[in-house]
Amino acid sequence: MLHPLRMRARPIVVHEEDAELESWGDAARGAVHWRTLLSGDRTASAALTLGVAELPPGADAPRPHRHAPPEAYYILEGTGVVEIDGREHAVRTGSAVFLPADASHCLRNTGPGSLRLVYVFPVDSFEDVEYVFPDEG
Amino acid sequence: MLHPLRMRARPIVVHEEDAELESWGDAARGAVHWRTLLSGDRTASAALTLGVAELPPGADAPRPHRHAPPEAYYILEGTGVVEIDGREHAVRTGSAVFLPADASHCLRNTGPGSLRLVYVFPVDSFEDVEYVFPDEG
Repeated sequence: MLHPLRMRARPIVVHEEDAELESWGDAARGAVHWRTLLSGDRTASAALTLGVAELPPGADAPRPHRHAPPEAYYILEGTGVVEIDGREHAVRTGSAVFLPADASHCLRNTGPGSLRLVYVFPVDSFEDVEYVFPDEG
Repeated sequence: MLHPLRMRARPIVVHEEDAELESWGDAARGAVHWRTLLSGDRTASAALTLGVAELPPGADAPRPHRHAPPEAYYILEGTGVVEIDGREHAVRTGSAVFLPADASHCLRNTGPGSLRLVYVFPVDSFEDVEYVFPDEG
């Protein structure tokens, strides 16, 4: 039996500028903001949740966090460092990053401009991604 | 029990310029070429297969095709038309597209420059995506 979300999945085209700008609403989590483009709670999509995130230049590093689903990034613009399970990796425009399930990770913008990226999860909806910020105790 | 691919999943960073340029090797399928960035058959990733594709300006339209997994696009650059199950949708830089499982689709570059996009599947490996080109009879 198909999951209800999959049953209603249909072709979708969403334009970035039409999507709402979102943020954590908690400065300690970092100045990252994002636009959710495909997510089963708001689009008739399934199996993939995709959006675009931006870290302004000089933004504080978002705190290390983890979540059960794996995640991939594709860097659209800028340069930065992604820290995964304590190890740092340089990223730049055109880099793809794979974050394994439950890997602790955070991203820093080390360049003079914005760091922009596509993020994607293999889940029906962004609601399926429970963020855990261990530093929040 | 975890799938063997998931068991070996580890953090990965791949830079686009280090990935091999691929194509269908069959002009009738269209002049699209792509670079696979994350795929379990070549990177220690799982659950997500991601790459970057490019349609040169004036390229012939790739033939309509389908595959069992759903797919998402994020348009990096250019303007085009994606046809999904016979219906056309305009896309441009910043558009996200959701292609449901088994939906027939093709993409045309309608702009003066290249049309570049990120594509992603919720599967361990690009080998898990069997392309069906009905026109090939």
